[in-house]
Amino acid sequence: MTNTIQTAVVGVTGYAGAELARLLLHHPRLKGAPPAFAGRVDQKDLARGGVPLAEIHPQLAGGFSGQLTMQPFSWNLLADLGVDLLFLATPHEQSREWVPQALARGLRVIDLSGAWRLEEAANRAVYGFEDEGSQQAAEIQTQAVYGLPELHRAQIAGSRLVANPGCYATSVILALKPLVAAGLVDLDHGIVADSKSGVSGAGKSPTAKTHFMYAADNLSAYGVFTHRHTGELLEQIGVDSSEIVFTPHLLPIPRGILSTVYVQFKQAQTHAHVANVYREFFAGSPMVRLHEKGLPQIQYVVRTSYADIGFQLDSSGRRAVIVSCLDNLLKGAASQAVQNMNVMLGWREAEGLE
Amino acid sequence: MTNTIQTAVVGVTGYAGAELARLLLHHPRLKGAPPAFAGRVDQKDLARGGVPLAEIHPQLAGGFSGQLTMQPFSWNLLADLGVDLLFLATPHEQSREWVPQALARGLRVIDLSGAWRLEEAANRAVYGFEDEGSQQAAEIQTQAVYGLPELHRAQIAGSRLVANPGCYATSVILALKPLVAAGLVDLDHGIVADSKSGVSGAGKSPTAKTHFMYAADNLSAYGVFTHRHTGELLEQIGVDSSEIVFTPHLLPIPRGILSTVYVQFKQAQTHAHVANVYREFFAGSPMVRLHEKGLPQIQYVVRTSYADIGFQLDSSGRRAVIVSCLDNLLKGAASQAVQNMNVMLGWREAEGLE
Amino acid sequence: MTNTIQTAVVGVTGYAGAELARLLLHHPRLKGAPPAFAGRVDQKDLARGGVPLAEIHPQLAGGFSGQLTMQPFSWNLLADLGVDLLFLATPHEQSREWVPQALARGLRVIDLSGAWRLEEAANRAVYGFEDEGSQQAAEIQTQAVYGLPELHRAQIAGSRLVANPGCYATSVILALKPLVAAGLVDLDHGIVADSKSGVSGAGKSPTAKTHFMYAADNLSAYGVFTHRHTGELLEQIGVDSSEIVFTPHLLPIPRGILSTVYVQFKQAQTHAHVANVYREFFAGSPMVRLHEKGLPQIQYVVRTSYADIGFQLDSSGRRAVIVSCLDNLLKGAASQAVQNMNVMLGWREAEGLE
Amino acid sequence: MTNTIQTAVVGVTGYAGAELARLLLHHPRLKGAPPAFAGRVDQKDLARGGVPLAEIHPQLAGGFSGQLTMQPFSWNLLADLGVDLLFLATPHEQSREWVPQALARGLRVIDLSGAWRLEEAANRAVYGFEDEGSQQAAEIQTQAVYGLPELHRAQIAGSRLVANPGCYATSVILALKPLVAAGLVDLDHGIVADSKSGVSGAGKSPTAKTHFMYAADNLSAYGVFTHRHTGELLEQIGVDSSEIVFTPHLLPIPRGILSTVYVQFKQAQTHAHVANVYREFFAGSPMVRLHEKGLPQIQYVVRTSYADIGFQLDSSGRRAVIVSCLDNLLKGAASQAVQNMNVMLGWREAEGLE
Repeated sequence: MTNTIQTAVVGVTGYAGAELARLLLHHPRLKGAPPAFAGRVDQKDLARGGVPLAEIHPQLAGGFSGQLTMQPFSWNLLADLGVDLLFLATPHEQSREWVPQALARGLRVIDLSGAWRLEEAANRAVYGFEDEGSQQAAEIQTQAVYGLPELHRAQIAGSRLVANPGCYATSVILALKPLVAAGLVDLDHGIVADSKSGVSGAGKSPTAKTHFMYAADNLSAYGVFTHRHTGELLEQIGVDSSEIVFTPHLLPIPRGILSTVYVQFKQAQTHAHVANVYREFFAGSPMVRLHEKGLPQIQYVVRTSYADIGFQLDSSGRRAVIVSCLDNLLKGAASQAVQNMNVMLGWREAEGLE
Repeated sequence: MTNTIQTAVVGVTGYAGAELARLLLHHPRLKGAPPAFAGRVDQKDLARGGVPLAEIHPQLAGGFSGQLTMQPFSWNLLADLGVDLLFLATPHEQSREWVPQALARGLRVIDLSGAWRLEEAANRAVYGFEDEGSQQAAEIQTQAVYGLPELHRAQIAGSRLVANPGCYATSVILALKPLVAAGLVDLDHGIVADSKSGVSGAGKSPTAKTHFMYAADNLSAYGVFTHRHTGELLEQIGVDSSEIVFTPHLLPIPRGILSTVYVQFKQAQTHAHVANVYREFFAGSPMVRLHEKGLPQIQYVVRTSYADIGFQLDSSGRRAVIVSCLDNLLKGAASQAVQNMNVMLGWREAEGLE
Repeated sequence: MTNTIQTAVVGVTGYAGAELARLLLHHPRLKGAPPAFAGRVDQKDLARGGVPLAEIHPQLAGGFSGQLTMQPFSWNLLADLGVDLLFLATPHEQSREWVPQALARGLRVIDLSGAWRLEEAANRAVYGFEDEGSQQAAEIQTQAVYGLPELHRAQIAGSRLVANPGCYATSVILALKPLVAAGLVDLDHGIVADSKSGVSGAGKSPTAKTHFMYAADNLSAYGVFTHRHTGELLEQIGVDSSEIVFTPHLLPIPRGILSTVYVQFKQAQTHAHVANVYREFFAGSPMVRLHEKGLPQIQYVVRTSYADIGFQLDSSGRRAVIVSCLDNLLKGAASQAVQNMNVMLGWREAEGLE
Repeated sequence: MTNTIQTAVVGVTGYAGAELARLLLHHPRLKGAPPAFAGRVDQKDLARGGVPLAEIHPQLAGGFSGQLTMQPFSWNLLADLGVDLLFLATPHEQSREWVPQALARGLRVIDLSGAWRLEEAANRAVYGFEDEGSQQAAEIQTQAVYGLPELHRAQIAGSRLVANPGCYATSVILALKPLVAAGLVDLDHGIVADSKSGVSGAGKSPTAKTHFMYAADNLSAYGVFTHRHTGELLEQIGVDSSEIVFTPHLLPIPRGILSTVYVQFKQAQTHAHVANVYREFFAGSPMVRLHEKGLPQIQYVVRTSYADIGFQLDSSGRRAVIVSCLDNLLKGAASQAVQNMNVMLGWREAEGLE
């Protein structure tokens, strides 16, 4: 098929990388051209021709994917394979280093890290990038599009660099943007976003906090007033840091995010009107499911590519509680990356995500 | 020991009942006078002299408690046993019916249900008590003391009827009362209490929502703007329903509550000052542990009788996030009942709870 | 496509039904002919044209499946829709009643219940079927093929009634049949099959044993020497009840089965030889993944359609521990039903299952 | 009280250490002489007088234990404090090094590691002790008593060095020893012990296998035919390695072990007779609870100091399945250590354990 393009994934060993591999391997437009996988490969594995994907992620074994391997990363490898579109599921600093090189070589990039998401230097400060302030970094930042198709579909379509959003940020922005954009929310009153995420959000490295004995049968708040997804919230929702409080919590489950968002309206609203504001905002957005009755919960979205949103008003119509759910590894990472690929390439936005 | 009194527990088959039994069986002041257990006993069990406690709760088997049984409830039984203090871990309606009778017979009562917690008829409406509006109910309500020793120690000491608080309510009130009482909180700005509870809070009856497949790997909000613990928050904290939003969530863990509470201060505060406000409020309160550095988490309190409280201010000093944790079956139910017993009887408040 | 057939699912509300619906909705050979869903529909839902699938299983909402509904079951409905192949995910007694009617109407049936799995009356006794001993039941039993394609591929292909195996049985039979068929196992020595299953295997009805508080943080053995899957083991492996002990356990996880199987060999074996026996037995069986190094675990198979098998010999070569894993709702139920459909209809066996 | 002795715990930071601290702090015979805690203390903590126990284990904060600290380990410290009895919850090699020194200084020792449990050099080989074969090690080994009071009560009473058993080993030995000792079991037929343990058994170090994402929603077998607790089984039960297979599994729960044990009897037995064999064996053993009806499960024993044992015979009376449960951190470690202390010192065996 002439539409087929060659993709490559760097960083397939992590949780988001595994999901991205799975989605790309089954994507209808990529049949016949499975993604290339590149990463760090040691001598022993080099000798046997790369690391079998089935060893990295046993659940991916079986069918044709069982034959695939991860190869040592090099720009020559990508060139030899004729890679058009590069997915980076790499640490932030790695993406800061590689994205300029990839763009210079004419590759399109979808970067799943936080490296290029933030326009404001003040918001980027939390990452402490080594190249912060360089002209090259500034230029690349201006090319980067924040990869939330529900907000920036048109810019993504023409982009060469998509900065795939943070998982928490996706969850909170989708809940709030429609209401704030419609001018309903009393920002002076302040917004509270109380988010809860499964442990996969903390990454694959074994640490004291990802130990089963720490996470299981527990709940803990962390990053209070300081979590680095806050900058994305401010820039994308268009609010000031004094107008929103965001608190993440670590849930004793493998995956899934639920954000409970509290707003006060400037004036009393009806449920029907608020539903309509959401419905209009998300018209043409296939990956958002609006719950007009009842509230979503994490089980509705886990292992799906959807963000589910529901809300409830108090009897006065002045206050709302909005509940927003998604799978942090899918709509919060890998599925969103595929959705961005679909938009970038002019394919059907939900292709390979249903 | 002359201080020994005879206790009885009705409703020992539930989760809070099991914890209450365990605590009373090991209470140093009740050595030699184990509590009586009464409830519904069928014919077959009657014939063998009651239901062995070890069958109801196998983890309580062993030692002397292995010999105890649950007897069929009757006022004569309590009289024959010389019961002084009755714990009711029964449904709300049952407590509405039995408390007047128990008081009339000269018993002291600690009621773990929601039957007598609320002073305002408007707040009680959510329960729909059958005897609402009767003179008897009104009289008994005036005798009832809300059993949160940290707020009402003196009244509990002299009381004959203690209404043991709700688990969520305990968690939120302890977080907020010191700050509100000190006049720090800007109530116009509104308070958000986002609470998360383990499944034992939903009771022992198997329902669609307590099914493992519903609760596990999940998180869901419920009772938004309508949860019946709201009335306790309003009355005890002393705020209006427009000034606080309370949202409970069902956590995929057996037990424990964590409440994340958001307040705006009237003016900027320092961490030291806020810590001091808490410290003074909880001076003499052995069951509250203040975390001056870091925030508590559910594992710190599960299977303990403590409520743990910590907080963090934003850089402006105008906003605070308070985290309050407890075990819903202990400080949220059974341990609080024992704490109330200790206060009622003039014993050391933390006796049997450490 | 001329190959398209019309399927229907009765019993879509359960866990296996949900997975079956999902698989059929995405099956490449059924594109354009989504399955019909039939079941019990109350008056209120009748009035609005059936129960939306998206309400029964919210995670299936989105895409075209969001439009589908469950209709009230009737033979006329199936006839009107031109149903060729009927999946019954119904209770055993229901399947005993409906299968004869379905066959009489010319439908092909894949029955997920235990109704028609057992050839021996002695083994069926545990179910206590009401029509046991009737001539009709006996005739239908002779037509039924035990739907484990790895053992009975040829008979399934020509069959009109497939009795989809039990989840535990699938797990244990796949581990043992290759070794027993090759004559390696010392049956006099006895086989032990120690199986552990997630809670979805216990069904959707809320009971004391499916309550989160019972299942979570727990493990319990049940049905010792009496579990009704035992008959399937005996008949399919070809052993006597004195030659095998099967003990199921309830795991605190939503889904997945791991069986640890212990055998003694008649004479010492090498790892390579045993691996070869498995490899030959499962040649042409795409849904079994043999682990020649290491042992499978539940996470490898959950939400996949594969059975994973691995084994280890002791240093003497006389004893083996075999570990067999599958997802009880997939290879243990819904995926196996789809695999049987593929075989029945001459399609690629793994179609729609990768 | 003249009976009071001074205890010290080295290795309090681990999971078993925390439980041991909790038990000793509440032990009735140690009131007034809380244990000393010693371990590795860095410069910063030295400067403030040691590490507060409440920081190491926040759930232990509150009451008098909140004042205790962990001090840097030294023999002088122990001498200054007048320590009589030393608990070592340290790694194996550490215990090999320190036990000789402790005994030389006249201390009694209860060692929770595997350092001194095994009489046979062949069984010790799996540990690879550096001092293996030295005369000192051989002499100390002869003094060590295997600390399972149900088997070796008399020797423990007079001992100066108790080797506290492994958690798996305790679970399996208690299930089997009574039957084997009574001569009931057909050893030629072979015994299968299929054990499942919670994650705390894997220790506190964060590793790939203790990561929440690995352990949660999973089950895996490990150490097949090679687990180092096997030697304890052989020596204590008195069987040959060809007569038993032991397979441990990692359960997705924090704590608890359930062992399912399969035996064949030499001749048919009745339930009553087997129950009697257990009852007689465990007469005078307060920490074993025999379930004469039904089988124990993990929830019965978690956070208790008991081992629960039940069994079921098949209809022929020739085969039995025995289920043995305990909390790996309590009867499998810390409680057993306290039980050994009680026996060593002539106190009531269950003191402080109910």
